Amino acid sequence: MDYTKYNKSYFDVINDRYSCREFTDEDVSIEQINMILEAGRVAPSAVNFQPVKIIVLRDEKIINEIIEKRATKYLFNAKTIFIICYDENISWHRGYDNVDHGVVDASICTTHMMLAIEALGLGTTYVCSFKEDLLKEILNLDKNIHVSAILPCGYKNEFKPHRERKELKDLVIWK
Amino acid sequence: MDYTKYNKSYFDVINDRYSCREFTDEDVSIEQINMILEAGRVAPSAVNFQPVKIIVLRDEKIINEIIEKRATKYLFNAKTIFIICYDENISWHRGYDNVDHGVVDASICTTHMMLAIEALGLGTTYVCSFKEDLLKEILNLDKNIHVSAILPCGYKNEFKPHRERKELKDLVIWK
Repeated sequence: MDYTKYNKSYFDVINDRYSCREFTDEDVSIEQINMILEAGRVAPSAVNFQPVKIIVLRDEKIINEIIEKRATKYLFNAKTIFIICYDENISWHRGYDNVDHGVVDASICTTHMMLAIEALGLGTTYVCSFKEDLLKEILNLDKNIHVSAILPCGYKNEFKPHRERKELKDLVIWK
Repeated sequence: MDYTKYNKSYFDVINDRYSCREFTDEDVSIEQINMILEAGRVAPSAVNFQPVKIIVLRDEKIINEIIEKRATKYLFNAKTIFIICYDENISWHRGYDNVDHGVVDASICTTHMMLAIEALGLGTTYVCSFKEDLLKEILNLDKNIHVSAILPCGYKNEFKPHRERKELKDLVIWK
């Protein structure tokens, strides 16, 4: 893939990004989708176990079923939707307290993809508000697969600045 | 802060990044630390509740205590260590199933910071292997604060390519 035409700097990407909830009618291309998936693929995971599965959802029938059954309200009429999952049978479970780190791995991957979408000049929102069991049923996912996040993706039709953030002094403890 | 001299593209950042576990003796500067913190600050969080707290740990005595008490084995002699936490009293709990999304928010923030470190030409590793209760005790953290990740940070003294990753076809389901 030719990355040279997408040379937006990392700091511009994170500073320009905002949660975009309105898209134009134009769908993204397969080349763009593959660049977003590739950004997810190179994300690190605990012990490099790579438990993440990514569903690229473009089937209108399935998208409509999700909406009708109210598995989530936050697809924003996007035509391409990434659903980021992890397999609890593959993810690293910390020996000390048996915490499953699949959700961390899926979140790192989702963040890589979210920022790739911005770097390509497209828009998305990191969605965690969904009914997981209903989504799994509609998508026909096995019991060991957990849905971690949804990234509805498209060309931005909504422009606005960053939402308010706390100041560093209210966030950081120096020791 | 002057971002113009750090213009590495997003795709170069994610493709060049690797887990660096060996650092030179030179410590990072306050300006660099502030740019890394700022990258964490702009990260999105569920419902913009911003539950993340970041500890910048540079106190040799505390670092040595963590090592001696074996709260983690993975500080790699770094002189600057970021510890990313979230406050469960602030984080969004999904109404449907009461899942606490603080860990997702902390992971997004940590990923933003991890990539900022690469964009600045520095190195880190995303560390999740630690004894949380022991770390909390040493750092004197309240019960409602959870430690999500550690980023030991410094100038790279170890150079190697990406670890192996699955191919896209073993990772992606098209629907």
